[in-house]
Amino acid sequence: MRTVVVTDPPRADAETVDALAAHGVATVHEAMGRTGYLGPGIRPVHLGSRIGGTAVTVLSWPGDNLMIHIAVEQCRPGDVLVVTTTSPSTDGMFGELFATALQHRGVRGLVINAGVRDVAELHAMGFPVWSAAVSAQGTVKATPGAVNVPVSIAGQPIHPGDAILADDDGVVCVPREDVPAVLEAAEARAAKEAATRAAFRRGELGLDRYGLRDRLPAMGIEYVTWS
Amino acid sequence: MRTVVVTDPPRADAETVDALAAHGVATVHEAMGRTGYLGPGIRPVHLGSRIGGTAVTVLSWPGDNLMIHIAVEQCRPGDVLVVTTTSPSTDGMFGELFATALQHRGVRGLVINAGVRDVAELHAMGFPVWSAAVSAQGTVKATPGAVNVPVSIAGQPIHPGDAILADDDGVVCVPREDVPAVLEAAEARAAKEAATRAAFRRGELGLDRYGLRDRLPAMGIEYVTWS
Amino acid sequence: MRTVVVTDPPRADAETVDALAAHGVATVHEAMGRTGYLGPGIRPVHLGSRIGGTAVTVLSWPGDNLMIHIAVEQCRPGDVLVVTTTSPSTDGMFGELFATALQHRGVRGLVINAGVRDVAELHAMGFPVWSAAVSAQGTVKATPGAVNVPVSIAGQPIHPGDAILADDDGVVCVPREDVPAVLEAAEARAAKEAATRAAFRRGELGLDRYGLRDRLPAMGIEYVTWS
Amino acid sequence: MRTVVVTDPPRADAETVDALAAHGVATVHEAMGRTGYLGPGIRPVHLGSRIGGTAVTVLSWPGDNLMIHIAVEQCRPGDVLVVTTTSPSTDGMFGELFATALQHRGVRGLVINAGVRDVAELHAMGFPVWSAAVSAQGTVKATPGAVNVPVSIAGQPIHPGDAILADDDGVVCVPREDVPAVLEAAEARAAKEAATRAAFRRGELGLDRYGLRDRLPAMGIEYVTWS
Amino acid sequence: MRTVVVTDPPRADAETVDALAAHGVATVHEAMGRTGYLGPGIRPVHLGSRIGGTAVTVLSWPGDNLMIHIAVEQCRPGDVLVVTTTSPSTDGMFGELFATALQHRGVRGLVINAGVRDVAELHAMGFPVWSAAVSAQGTVKATPGAVNVPVSIAGQPIHPGDAILADDDGVVCVPREDVPAVLEAAEARAAKEAATRAAFRRGELGLDRYGLRDRLPAMGIEYVTWS
Amino acid sequence: MRTVVVTDPPRADAETVDALAAHGVATVHEAMGRTGYLGPGIRPVHLGSRIGGTAVTVLSWPGDNLMIHIAVEQCRPGDVLVVTTTSPSTDGMFGELFATALQHRGVRGLVINAGVRDVAELHAMGFPVWSAAVSAQGTVKATPGAVNVPVSIAGQPIHPGDAILADDDGVVCVPREDVPAVLEAAEARAAKEAATRAAFRRGELGLDRYGLRDRLPAMGIEYVTWS
Repeated sequence: MRTVVVTDPPRADAETVDALAAHGVATVHEAMGRTGYLGPGIRPVHLGSRIGGTAVTVLSWPGDNLMIHIAVEQCRPGDVLVVTTTSPSTDGMFGELFATALQHRGVRGLVINAGVRDVAELHAMGFPVWSAAVSAQGTVKATPGAVNVPVSIAGQPIHPGDAILADDDGVVCVPREDVPAVLEAAEARAAKEAATRAAFRRGELGLDRYGLRDRLPAMGIEYVTWS
Repeated sequence: MRTVVVTDPPRADAETVDALAAHGVATVHEAMGRTGYLGPGIRPVHLGSRIGGTAVTVLSWPGDNLMIHIAVEQCRPGDVLVVTTTSPSTDGMFGELFATALQHRGVRGLVINAGVRDVAELHAMGFPVWSAAVSAQGTVKATPGAVNVPVSIAGQPIHPGDAILADDDGVVCVPREDVPAVLEAAEARAAKEAATRAAFRRGELGLDRYGLRDRLPAMGIEYVTWS
Repeated sequence: MRTVVVTDPPRADAETVDALAAHGVATVHEAMGRTGYLGPGIRPVHLGSRIGGTAVTVLSWPGDNLMIHIAVEQCRPGDVLVVTTTSPSTDGMFGELFATALQHRGVRGLVINAGVRDVAELHAMGFPVWSAAVSAQGTVKATPGAVNVPVSIAGQPIHPGDAILADDDGVVCVPREDVPAVLEAAEARAAKEAATRAAFRRGELGLDRYGLRDRLPAMGIEYVTWS
Repeated sequence: MRTVVVTDPPRADAETVDALAAHGVATVHEAMGRTGYLGPGIRPVHLGSRIGGTAVTVLSWPGDNLMIHIAVEQCRPGDVLVVTTTSPSTDGMFGELFATALQHRGVRGLVINAGVRDVAELHAMGFPVWSAAVSAQGTVKATPGAVNVPVSIAGQPIHPGDAILADDDGVVCVPREDVPAVLEAAEARAAKEAATRAAFRRGELGLDRYGLRDRLPAMGIEYVTWS
Repeated sequence: MRTVVVTDPPRADAETVDALAAHGVATVHEAMGRTGYLGPGIRPVHLGSRIGGTAVTVLSWPGDNLMIHIAVEQCRPGDVLVVTTTSPSTDGMFGELFATALQHRGVRGLVINAGVRDVAELHAMGFPVWSAAVSAQGTVKATPGAVNVPVSIAGQPIHPGDAILADDDGVVCVPREDVPAVLEAAEARAAKEAATRAAFRRGELGLDRYGLRDRLPAMGIEYVTWS
Repeated sequence: MRTVVVTDPPRADAETVDALAAHGVATVHEAMGRTGYLGPGIRPVHLGSRIGGTAVTVLSWPGDNLMIHIAVEQCRPGDVLVVTTTSPSTDGMFGELFATALQHRGVRGLVINAGVRDVAELHAMGFPVWSAAVSAQGTVKATPGAVNVPVSIAGQPIHPGDAILADDDGVVCVPREDVPAVLEAAEARAAKEAATRAAFRRGELGLDRYGLRDRLPAMGIEYVTWS
């Protein structure tokens, strides 16, 4: 691993990211052609938040949070800190002291493919976290890693400056250069979903709305009455 | 797999199912001789609901929600949709648009041995869900499966029309023909539990109430004082 | 296994345990030199509680809660019941009837390396539980085990009378004889954390506060500008 | 659970089962329309066996092998013992003494959704086992279950007398009444596979053989040259 | 954690350990009253070995093998190295260079609750390993731990000098002071098993040999003929 | 997802890849600064192979092997097929017919982050496989994906044409452009390991060879005699 801290990567445009965040993780994931999702293993510690921001990425050694200390300094208002480890770990690498420092810098939340602790305090101070685990297990500050390099969670690449959106469905990453196009696609999808929602409320069926009914016989699906 | 949609299976009697639902999952599971439980892997997405209804069953290909679209049309007021896949999957096969369509038809909730998404929206609209995962990962509508065939979750067979009860402890399935007898057994058990609860509040011990104390020596259990 | 019930083990001093509990699991774990934590697999069923007490330990056969019945009688005000099984199990060994009996005796909560049920009722009655699973699956009372013997959860030994502290971060065990020293260490750590919190609120960085910045070059960490 | 031992269930025809076994698990699973597979969680303890036989089913309490003792007596030459538990367990419920008794009765192997032990000895005596775990953890004989009732593993129902086929790919169950038809389908599939194998050896592509190439544009798949 | 290296702990008597090892893990576990087993999560990397020796214990930080380097020096002929980590890790902490050093010192094998690598080379050189994982992921030498302190794997305490027995069923630990008594109990059990084996070969049933048949009606087990 | 097939990506130089393969996965992973490893979840189906080749990558829908059919045509002698899915799946997407087609084209093996089947046949024909699961569960050919796009397994990016090395320790990916430098580093490391091996065979300790002994006091590690 190249033990490097990359400073001042370009960020996705803040206003566009904010507009995108309003659409929610599932809609944005669909708008990207069903890509970008960090998987069901990264969950909100508390339900009820929805945030968007730009990624500052951290690659840490398991059981070691040295690189998070370094990353704090690289954070700006509107960022989301994204942390992963070089091999799987559930240790509690992040707690309320880190959150205090990040809130001071205007960071909107944490996405971590490892553990967090002080979760009652994090909730009380309004700092939202999406993590792979909750664990009180403490860590050391002994082994180097990297900040603002490309990382990958659940098969999904994340580059510094990418848009990170998170809500109760989990986390999605939108590549920086795609943010404007994805916003457009998300708005189109949201409009379409609104129309479908209205139709479903009137009793229309997806079977008809999506033109599925006529395709069923060719798929070999037959209807039989209970006997 | 026979790719079939079975229409109009007989349902367990709605009133009896409602009476049964009041007893809660753990009591009904005990009343059935400790059977019918769908296991600790199926959890409520939000705590605090308790429902009962009759099963409409769906067997889907992983990553594909075509059969849920077909199943919506087979649902009636008082049903609970029960979905499983032919091999393990965490994909988000179900979201708020489906829930909108099901609420229109009077469906009481969803039990799914896979993933759901839009969970903030599902909670806001009051549509309770028990699932194996929360995932934004979207699905296609390409591969056939079956509706209203027998399925199995965690070793527990579920037939269309069976009673499905769900609360914070998970989900239990009561075979349609057993519903009246299980209601009787659940009422008997609830009465017994009420008496035990009262006794425990007075300080009686299970050791005495269940006649265990006298059996301990034969089991080889000895009491020793700390030294 | 020696099938034994040890009566009247000495307990950690109640007042010291209460003082320790106020510091929270993560702080106490750090104060013990990062030991004592029961791991991320033991989670609160409901978020929002923080308790402390003295351990009454139970070693049960999987699928069998006989020994919990025996253990109830050994509990005193200020205890926390700690249950594990001889091999991994998720069965719902504990429910609201047990909680009723324990509340009568002044027990403060349950830590169980297996499943619990009646979790809505447990929450309503204010009996906090930390468990490895929620499961309605019932158990029998057929096979002996032990009460108040040393047990181990997630590699952490727990002796009867040890201090058990639990909150939203999980559970930590403090050996009985170490409780006074750990309280002192926890108070020192809390004071240090308060100073750090204040510094971070003013914008100081951990990188500087912990003297890390000067050590980075020796670790081979280099800063590069994005290109 | 009804604690019952069903005697003398009808078995699938032995000769047909033997003919079917020759085709291997994957081919038979395909011949059944991709059903009947007990999932990737049931694995051979040692690679290199391929067996077929008729199911004697056992439903046991976790950590308890009483019902296996009862089931031995129900076994006949050509049977395969199929064991599952009422809740998940990895305990070593079966070892070489059981295998000795079963070999005496002409039983061909064991399929168990739990643990086995003495696996070196089982291999030495030529008794093949497919299991969810290997574990030395011993069990008791205290709690009743059932023999020759329908059970379910990985969502797959298994009835006494069904054909059980097992090889390095795992285990498949063929319902007793379907055995002749599945044999026919398996033979047809094997013939088709032989032709495909010969074609592939000559360099033909599946893309052409299965008529996929023409469908790719409609699926939106485009070919682009590396740039 | 106290970062300490304890030198020259007393070992269980070598000859008695060797006699015990001949009985195999499952038999010794039973002879100890079904205790001492390190669980199904610790598996032989290659099947076919059976060893016994005295424990040198190591407690390491995850992703860090510094303490194994220290432990090598503490090993004597007849020892087995037993390694665990302060939180779960699958990293490859041990490879053929360590095995070369240990073979030079007469160490009989490795038991590790984490990962190993160079497994082809380990097999070629005849150094048997039981581990929680195989992983090429390398580790650092940065964070202290402890050697020859009590550790715990799968709820089982292990002290330096305890007897460690390992075969294809996994690993069992016998407390040093219990080794002579456990050898006696294992010999008694082996004799009993030999008699049972002979009886089973003659066709006797466990149902009769263990006196179970008469107890079945009281357990509520009834026999019914297939209908 | 862009449903695309990229043709003729540049490959790492075949001879250099072959030279690299001789060093084994663990050594190459170390030579890359402890990067590139696909994690302990990808295991050889049979132990005893060591291969190297250039990646043809496949991104498939779960339960669907359409894209593998397309990928076969893109394979050349010296390639290794690398398959992953858009969400986790254990289905048996690959069997001996595919292996027959790939052997015809000179492909050296398969790395798949999902399931394989026909594993006895694959072994018999000498086609080595590293996979996340073995499963007979069949798949469909209905949903598009991509061939020769960047994919990621266990946080490790893999580009078409990268060098893939696999042995009993798992799989490592070396970026195409880094192959010559990594070969050099691997040779240097192998030489160093040979010297260390010789030293360890003479009884030298890692503690001394790596200069660790003098650093122990500063780390707070103390030696104490057993008391």
